[in-house]
Amino acid sequence: MDRRSFIKSGALAGVGATVAGKGTLTETKKTPGAASVLRGIDDRNVNMGFLGVGLRGRSHLGRILQRDDCNVVAICDIDPAAVSLAQKMISDAGKPSAAVYDAGEFAFEQLVERDDIDGVIIATPWLWHTRMSVSAMKAGKYAGVEVSACNTIEECWDLVEAYEASGTPCMILENVCYRRDVMAILNMVRQGVFGELVHFECGYQHDLRAVKFNDGIQPYGGGVEFGDNAFSEAKWRTSHSVYRNGDLYPTHGVGPIGVYANINRGNRFVSLTSTASKARGLHRYIVNEAGAEHPNASIRFALGDVITTVIETQQGESIIVSHDTNSPRPYSLGFRVQGTNGLWMDLNKSIYLEGKSPEHRWEDAESYLSEYDHPLWKKYGKTAQGAGHGGMDFFVDHAFVESIKRGVGTPLDAYDAAAWSAVSPLSETSIAEGSAPQPFPDFTRGRWMNRKPVFALNDEF
Amino acid sequence: MDRRSFIKSGALAGVGATVAGKGTLTETKKTPGAASVLRGIDDRNVNMGFLGVGLRGRSHLGRILQRDDCNVVAICDIDPAAVSLAQKMISDAGKPSAAVYDAGEFAFEQLVERDDIDGVIIATPWLWHTRMSVSAMKAGKYAGVEVSACNTIEECWDLVEAYEASGTPCMILENVCYRRDVMAILNMVRQGVFGELVHFECGYQHDLRAVKFNDGIQPYGGGVEFGDNAFSEAKWRTSHSVYRNGDLYPTHGVGPIGVYANINRGNRFVSLTSTASKARGLHRYIVNEAGAEHPNASIRFALGDVITTVIETQQGESIIVSHDTNSPRPYSLGFRVQGTNGLWMDLNKSIYLEGKSPEHRWEDAESYLSEYDHPLWKKYGKTAQGAGHGGMDFFVDHAFVESIKRGVGTPLDAYDAAAWSAVSPLSETSIAEGSAPQPFPDFTRGRWMNRKPVFALNDEF
Repeated sequence: MDRRSFIKSGALAGVGATVAGKGTLTETKKTPGAASVLRGIDDRNVNMGFLGVGLRGRSHLGRILQRDDCNVVAICDIDPAAVSLAQKMISDAGKPSAAVYDAGEFAFEQLVERDDIDGVIIATPWLWHTRMSVSAMKAGKYAGVEVSACNTIEECWDLVEAYEASGTPCMILENVCYRRDVMAILNMVRQGVFGELVHFECGYQHDLRAVKFNDGIQPYGGGVEFGDNAFSEAKWRTSHSVYRNGDLYPTHGVGPIGVYANINRGNRFVSLTSTASKARGLHRYIVNEAGAEHPNASIRFALGDVITTVIETQQGESIIVSHDTNSPRPYSLGFRVQGTNGLWMDLNKSIYLEGKSPEHRWEDAESYLSEYDHPLWKKYGKTAQGAGHGGMDFFVDHAFVESIKRGVGTPLDAYDAAAWSAVSPLSETSIAEGSAPQPFPDFTRGRWMNRKPVFALNDEF
Repeated sequence: MDRRSFIKSGALAGVGATVAGKGTLTETKKTPGAASVLRGIDDRNVNMGFLGVGLRGRSHLGRILQRDDCNVVAICDIDPAAVSLAQKMISDAGKPSAAVYDAGEFAFEQLVERDDIDGVIIATPWLWHTRMSVSAMKAGKYAGVEVSACNTIEECWDLVEAYEASGTPCMILENVCYRRDVMAILNMVRQGVFGELVHFECGYQHDLRAVKFNDGIQPYGGGVEFGDNAFSEAKWRTSHSVYRNGDLYPTHGVGPIGVYANINRGNRFVSLTSTASKARGLHRYIVNEAGAEHPNASIRFALGDVITTVIETQQGESIIVSHDTNSPRPYSLGFRVQGTNGLWMDLNKSIYLEGKSPEHRWEDAESYLSEYDHPLWKKYGKTAQGAGHGGMDFFVDHAFVESIKRGVGTPLDAYDAAAWSAVSPLSETSIAEGSAPQPFPDFTRGRWMNRKPVFALNDEF
């Protein structure tokens, strides 16, 4: 049995065991991923490939290189500078240099066909995410894909169908699901501290103007260029603001809320409405930084400055999702988790719980966050220090690697990737139709009714 | 010329002068209220009537009694205890006792017909607000109506049409428009500190469980009775939670935002969507307080615990309006005012302004709120102390009285009352139709395009 078929059979064995445990015989090879509750100890090494070694890809690479259980076998990028920086990181870590795939935009198809790779981490421009994930799954490689995973509803289905057809897991690498406070709140949610969940708020409120524009040399700011004249994210990300009006980046918000609300696992997103404010921020930034005569000052950006999406779930919760990336403002994901017993809010770092908090008064969340610190953070908190984004990046890569090692489903899966990413195209359609409600496709085809929560159930991964 | 015709001609003279000042001749008798920019000094006394002298009515009564420029001529209530408490307040203030109208629910119709009354303050259950306001206006009496002003779209039109037909102003007594921080932010908005306005948030997030239920003796809590068995607000307010699913109480939020955004004065509400969470809080409260066997535990409340409404304006701003009255939580109106230069948020009492605040960091709002303290608060802040709700109640009554004295339009008018109150029925319809967008009627019939802001332009009222 070679490594590749071992991995596949491992994943399927996991599924079978879970299914047997539930006493149902209707699940088949087409239902991978349900197995991640089965987590044997495993000391095998994982051979990893990287699709995209730009800034974000190299951030993952750095963490994978720190692990004793991972080998970096191959990397793929069309930017020679990125490839050479990645190779230097690999050699600096004292590891053998990786095979390079750089011959055109579709070179990744050769990388994923290698027999010696178990999984790939995909950190490329958004429009490549689904295509590369599908390609990896079809080739039997675990796909770890950066956020969002899909840009259109068709891509959501592509991802899910490739997952079901291949039996190979796909994990959306949503790091915010692993933020320390977010996981402590998950712990509280699961212990029933908030009571029955009723309402959520979340979003991506981040002044990205210096990410969307730069001088073509540095990644952040210094100019108002984007597209071919720019460097790093501004090269590809900004065009989405030119052409699309909707919540372009929902998963940092709806990911954690999706976990709290057991989306695809006893619950599901049912429908959404979305409303866009006027679009002023990006034009204003160009004019302020480079003057009204700069050619980019004539561009009409489609993306409203603030996009407000309201999701309804099958279990009757409401979720407000904000997207606010064109305006001067402090960073905030704006979480709110509200149940019948009380609520947590991120902005004022406060909790109110009936019968515990002084009446009608907020309490500092800090003591709750310590008390309910998630077992994963208790175990790996020190290791995670300095891993990126306050440590949460460690956990998302750790979960991906450990899932591969055990040959089981990933804690966040293709259905999660599809449901969360679907917010973008549905939001665009709602806005285009005057905020008309849009139904979510049920990517699980009804299996959300019986699927069980698997995310971070213990201190393993 | 008797007092009543004096008031009417005063109001109309004001309109004429304003119209003449703008050089247009198309405005007629049917356009009252546009005149409130004309504010002559006036030392006349105002004769006031009270429709409803329950807790809220007596709160207004107490403030009116403190004024040297007001006489309380008549009061109306069907509750003898309320009438006698009000009369005691009047005599304790050393004033002659008021005429009483208590002979049935329609006794108010006789009160408003009195020749010696200039204006009435209406603080009755919601279902009487429009009816009484219309009746007062038709009788030529300034109508000061508690919030919300209307329960249905038909009532919104009733109010506007009575205003236009009678030429008598109607002021929605929205006290939060006069909250000290809210007015300081208005000052900042008008001075362009936030730049072009883009997005707002607001709401009514107030644990009303002990308001909706009591023991029939005390106004707040102590039991789970409502309707006939209850006292004060629980007698009438709770039935709205039984039968209606929507934002039942929008004006504390959309009032101030309406002023910031110049709604009906260069801008208007265009449409909304609304989404309700599940309804759990009220049933849970009854069970927790009185057990599952209490008869009220079998009631199915229509009102979702959290109602989220998103409004779009003609000028392209978005407004999130939250209604959250059935759950344990600290009080918060959740204001956010965001423009191209930065934003204020109420919850964390913080402001961020580009070029002023440290980059990507919130600043405590306090120094801005002091710097931009509104001229009205500078002048009357001391007088307002202890007037109720942190002083804002003083200003709303003051504005009503001063408008009557000058015979001019009120700073908040029938169009404001209609547009703000319309959020409730439109929200109900949207929820009933699966969050489908609902257009706002244009209660100004297009005149929002030319109407100018009048609210709190100086330190008079």
